Amino acid sequence: MVVIMKPGTTESDIEKMISYVKDMGLDVMVNKGVDCTVLGLLGDTSRIDPDTLMLNIHVDRVMRIAEPFKKASRKFHPDSTVVRVGDAEIGKEKTFTVIAGPCSVESEEQIIEVAESVKESGAKLLRGGAFKPRTSPYSFQGLELEGIALLKEAKEKTGLPIVTEIMSPAMVETFEESVDIIQVGARNMQNFDLLKELGKSSKPILLKRGLSSTIEEWLMSAEYILAGGNSNVILCERGIRTFETYTRNTLDLSAIPAVKRLSHLPVIVDPSHSAGMSWMVEPLSLAAMAVGADGLIVEVHNCPEKALCDGAQSLNPGQFKNLMQKLKGIGSNLGLEV
Amino acid sequence: MVVIMKPGTTESDIEKMISYVKDMGLDVMVNKGVDCTVLGLLGDTSRIDPDTLMLNIHVDRVMRIAEPFKKASRKFHPDSTVVRVGDAEIGKEKTFTVIAGPCSVESEEQIIEVAESVKESGAKLLRGGAFKPRTSPYSFQGLELEGIALLKEAKEKTGLPIVTEIMSPAMVETFEESVDIIQVGARNMQNFDLLKELGKSSKPILLKRGLSSTIEEWLMSAEYILAGGNSNVILCERGIRTFETYTRNTLDLSAIPAVKRLSHLPVIVDPSHSAGMSWMVEPLSLAAMAVGADGLIVEVHNCPEKALCDGAQSLNPGQFKNLMQKLKGIGSNLGLEV
Amino acid sequence: MVVIMKPGTTESDIEKMISYVKDMGLDVMVNKGVDCTVLGLLGDTSRIDPDTLMLNIHVDRVMRIAEPFKKASRKFHPDSTVVRVGDAEIGKEKTFTVIAGPCSVESEEQIIEVAESVKESGAKLLRGGAFKPRTSPYSFQGLELEGIALLKEAKEKTGLPIVTEIMSPAMVETFEESVDIIQVGARNMQNFDLLKELGKSSKPILLKRGLSSTIEEWLMSAEYILAGGNSNVILCERGIRTFETYTRNTLDLSAIPAVKRLSHLPVIVDPSHSAGMSWMVEPLSLAAMAVGADGLIVEVHNCPEKALCDGAQSLNPGQFKNLMQKLKGIGSNLGLEV
Amino acid sequence: MVVIMKPGTTESDIEKMISYVKDMGLDVMVNKGVDCTVLGLLGDTSRIDPDTLMLNIHVDRVMRIAEPFKKASRKFHPDSTVVRVGDAEIGKEKTFTVIAGPCSVESEEQIIEVAESVKESGAKLLRGGAFKPRTSPYSFQGLELEGIALLKEAKEKTGLPIVTEIMSPAMVETFEESVDIIQVGARNMQNFDLLKELGKSSKPILLKRGLSSTIEEWLMSAEYILAGGNSNVILCERGIRTFETYTRNTLDLSAIPAVKRLSHLPVIVDPSHSAGMSWMVEPLSLAAMAVGADGLIVEVHNCPEKALCDGAQSLNPGQFKNLMQKLKGIGSNLGLEV
Repeated sequence: MVVIMKPGTTESDIEKMISYVKDMGLDVMVNKGVDCTVLGLLGDTSRIDPDTLMLNIHVDRVMRIAEPFKKASRKFHPDSTVVRVGDAEIGKEKTFTVIAGPCSVESEEQIIEVAESVKESGAKLLRGGAFKPRTSPYSFQGLELEGIALLKEAKEKTGLPIVTEIMSPAMVETFEESVDIIQVGARNMQNFDLLKELGKSSKPILLKRGLSSTIEEWLMSAEYILAGGNSNVILCERGIRTFETYTRNTLDLSAIPAVKRLSHLPVIVDPSHSAGMSWMVEPLSLAAMAVGADGLIVEVHNCPEKALCDGAQSLNPGQFKNLMQKLKGIGSNLGLEV
Repeated sequence: MVVIMKPGTTESDIEKMISYVKDMGLDVMVNKGVDCTVLGLLGDTSRIDPDTLMLNIHVDRVMRIAEPFKKASRKFHPDSTVVRVGDAEIGKEKTFTVIAGPCSVESEEQIIEVAESVKESGAKLLRGGAFKPRTSPYSFQGLELEGIALLKEAKEKTGLPIVTEIMSPAMVETFEESVDIIQVGARNMQNFDLLKELGKSSKPILLKRGLSSTIEEWLMSAEYILAGGNSNVILCERGIRTFETYTRNTLDLSAIPAVKRLSHLPVIVDPSHSAGMSWMVEPLSLAAMAVGADGLIVEVHNCPEKALCDGAQSLNPGQFKNLMQKLKGIGSNLGLEV
Repeated sequence: MVVIMKPGTTESDIEKMISYVKDMGLDVMVNKGVDCTVLGLLGDTSRIDPDTLMLNIHVDRVMRIAEPFKKASRKFHPDSTVVRVGDAEIGKEKTFTVIAGPCSVESEEQIIEVAESVKESGAKLLRGGAFKPRTSPYSFQGLELEGIALLKEAKEKTGLPIVTEIMSPAMVETFEESVDIIQVGARNMQNFDLLKELGKSSKPILLKRGLSSTIEEWLMSAEYILAGGNSNVILCERGIRTFETYTRNTLDLSAIPAVKRLSHLPVIVDPSHSAGMSWMVEPLSLAAMAVGADGLIVEVHNCPEKALCDGAQSLNPGQFKNLMQKLKGIGSNLGLEV
Repeated sequence: MVVIMKPGTTESDIEKMISYVKDMGLDVMVNKGVDCTVLGLLGDTSRIDPDTLMLNIHVDRVMRIAEPFKKASRKFHPDSTVVRVGDAEIGKEKTFTVIAGPCSVESEEQIIEVAESVKESGAKLLRGGAFKPRTSPYSFQGLELEGIALLKEAKEKTGLPIVTEIMSPAMVETFEESVDIIQVGARNMQNFDLLKELGKSSKPILLKRGLSSTIEEWLMSAEYILAGGNSNVILCERGIRTFETYTRNTLDLSAIPAVKRLSHLPVIVDPSHSAGMSWMVEPLSLAAMAVGADGLIVEVHNCPEKALCDGAQSLNPGQFKNLMQKLKGIGSNLGLEV
């Protein structure tokens, strides 16, 4: 960490700052420049809050050199984390894991039919929303506990472990009992009370990136869970907010190699929510594989009889089957097992 | 709401869509154009989710004409809402209310000293953080319940009602008993489970705008609280994330007249967090008054003896006194009571 | 185009608006709703400026249904455009074209050495900057005309056609004589006077996307060139500005399938500038191929003897050779000729 | 400037870097930390391009401490620049200058009528667009040279100096002869060839901020003009692109105190383009004054006989007169002469 003192700061004020920093258990290297003095802080600065240093009236700027996350950092944990759930080994080298299922659980028939079909096509886990975060209080909020029960039924029938979203710390106990991977949605990425509770859970956490979050903020949210004692965190890139309006969000695929370098945690991609258009799921999924993601979480919906179907962002079972075949094709070239 | 069907949609598919919409209790006007057919949906469309309509494969786009919020809309509630707490009447015409206090409650001495000084300068309410949302799990998380107790003590001494931030639905009961205005921070603006709980509270809610939220999303979050039965919502603009790095966030002052036109709810400005620099608080506060805000929430910190003081974004009591005098000056010209 | 009149507009004012629109040669469908009247404008609305309609005090909003670009639209030009330069056929189905070379032309030795090496590895065109857009007036602005001369020399030696950036309408004549593809940089994407001049050129134009441009604005800039009579436009995605700071810009790979659907123009990807880090060039290049781009423009630098080398964002010739082999591998799986 | 070497860099590679920097005429302070070595560069680093240093494979990061602009910096030029044109003294302490006029020059009658009316209300300069940057090649591009001629006529009639936008370096000579202040639009803020030409002009330049530019980039563009020898630059904040869609752009009023502190150049505000709605011009104008701007550039349009009038973002002469009275009211309280 580098602390730049304001031009004109007196010797005595610089000395006070140095003592203050040394009291925190750090060493200090002093650079006296023409315009200003620069302090280099040496030691474990991950626990230091730059804003606290900025409280000193003589400090001009504070710049981090080391990353503020530690448990999530590959630097201190060079081996990649592998999260094992059922048959899946998410994050394992040369492995590409696909999670699939409907946006919302709607009925017993629906979830079981989708579960069976995605399993046949090669999905390793089943996703499905029971508690839904909705911008409007008047929109459908999900089947809630009934949805969880239906997911469990689908798991019993197919053997696929289940992934579903949590929205409140009060629900952690219920999820702990019923769910295989607990998903934190983009809007709750900085719901710190929820993250703290999940740090105590024994279940893997799928942590989606916030809509306008930086990679550092995302890894700091993972750090909350890891610091609480839960080391099974899977990151999920799902698109960020940009000025583009043609796609709902902009899938940040360059975040994948960045995260793989910065952190040992597995990172998967959600190509369905980001684009919001089913025809874009295939090219984005292939690109996610090519860029180095550890897997996908894809929306698949079935609706043979309904007039209003073919969800804007969901694949139908046939389209998903085609996607899996293409992924296996490119995967074989890249040496990946899908 | 306007639904644009894809070019080449058959008569029969258009008829199915029309029946579907009529089944929701709406009327439909049909526009057959050269390229495509456009349906105008008439009736109460606020409860219709555009995404659901997009599920129809023949729908090209859905565009809202009416706003998706109803209880928060000035259209259906032309009179401005006035939130009354202690002596303050936030949102009352020709009134400008100032809330002030430290970022975090640190000690009994600190909070009482600040409370007395801001009261003398003209603040109507006391703010102070007890539960602090922090990006890093290693940063100070606030004095928590002890902080609430100290705020209550300061209230007893000065008579100033207290405003403090809540972070979890589990704390609503405690806040209900102890606090006068419950603040929802920017990161929790779309913590829907928390908003639902606050909808049942009898206390006014100060709802900060999310860092990358649109005005519509902000008003939809207010709608959650209003729909739950709590009509006392105060909106607070606190800066949005932009590419500018000189200021921490960019205070969106044009949001103030926009919100005043769209909604009947009072809206105040936080000039401290947005800029992150104490010298910018004064010009931004004067601008907030000039642009039509109903008040301010300002950080004020005291620390006469400490070496490390003069918070990067906090005013000291003397600076706050000066600010209040300038506000009274311009306020008198604008016919505002400060 | 849909025009929404304000609630309460009188019959007579609506009639005036209808006459006004009909005078522009359009037909109008009238939708009288409960709250407001909606006009559907039928005919060629691409020449209508929504802002002009907004000048009417009774208009609430104007929404486009058709795209504002016509010559760039796939709707009116279903066959993909193929730009032929030397051996390259950019945009041809099942073809993936790679352009490579240094960021800046530095010397005769450098440009010829790089040209020979990238040719051997399979690049079809040579890139190299002669005129450099620099944020600071004090930064190196390129070798300018001397750089152009050196590029021509490299072309003579290797047969590779050359691509370089233009910065001013005054230089169009010079580029017309010397260059094979004229590049428009991100900062000049809306330099309309330059675009107009390039519309009269006989050379293909490589149009980079602006740092904060939407896809629609990008295609409108292409429309300027096409409308001027030059039908050889290649689009180039090079990363957009987002809040992420780890990468210099965020490569928007979802823009590729979007542009391929909206337009018939070829679109290539610049993986070097977007990330700003050489180790990220390979994964982003593979992802660009997988997502459906027509090719790449990659920075390659040679500097065997210099102490300060291995540019932050440039590959060296060996790295580039490896990249080409990986592209050929995945390409063969996708049926693409590289 | 601080250069952070990668962990594990050898002594010999660090020595090479130090020699390289010393060869540029700078002094170096060396900080050997536990993880890495940090070099502090002392001397005039404004001419050093951080990207060039990043070319060294052993450099991890380069961070500026000093600002990269020099001639635009208040540090080296503490007195505020005052630009004098006609009666106006833009940037003079305790002075607030208003520029007004139509978006586009449309006819002799129009421009003269508006010029006379805004003069009467207190505007010191006349604005009017002759060359218009338009997103679509099919939109009206302005009266061009005829527009300039009409502006000159209005100047003769009223004595008001004229401000109009330039779009191409080829037009600098014409503008030099005819115009009093040459405006550079937001889309041309980084049209460096244009900025270089304007650096040689004797006329003041009104430099609008780019839609997604940082304050530093904006001041670097001013630096181009100043470095060319033209010291009369007026900055103009006109709104930045954000995710908000209710307003066309987001007026960044916090940029005003930031720029006044960083630079000695005058800075004015355009409240018309940013919001895009005439009813928002008044609150934003008052806020611009309160926040410390040196003046405004406001759109005023007259159209007594036309059916389609009252421009979405333009005030009519009566509204402008009211605005000027309110500005004088608050101005008197703030000690400003309007």
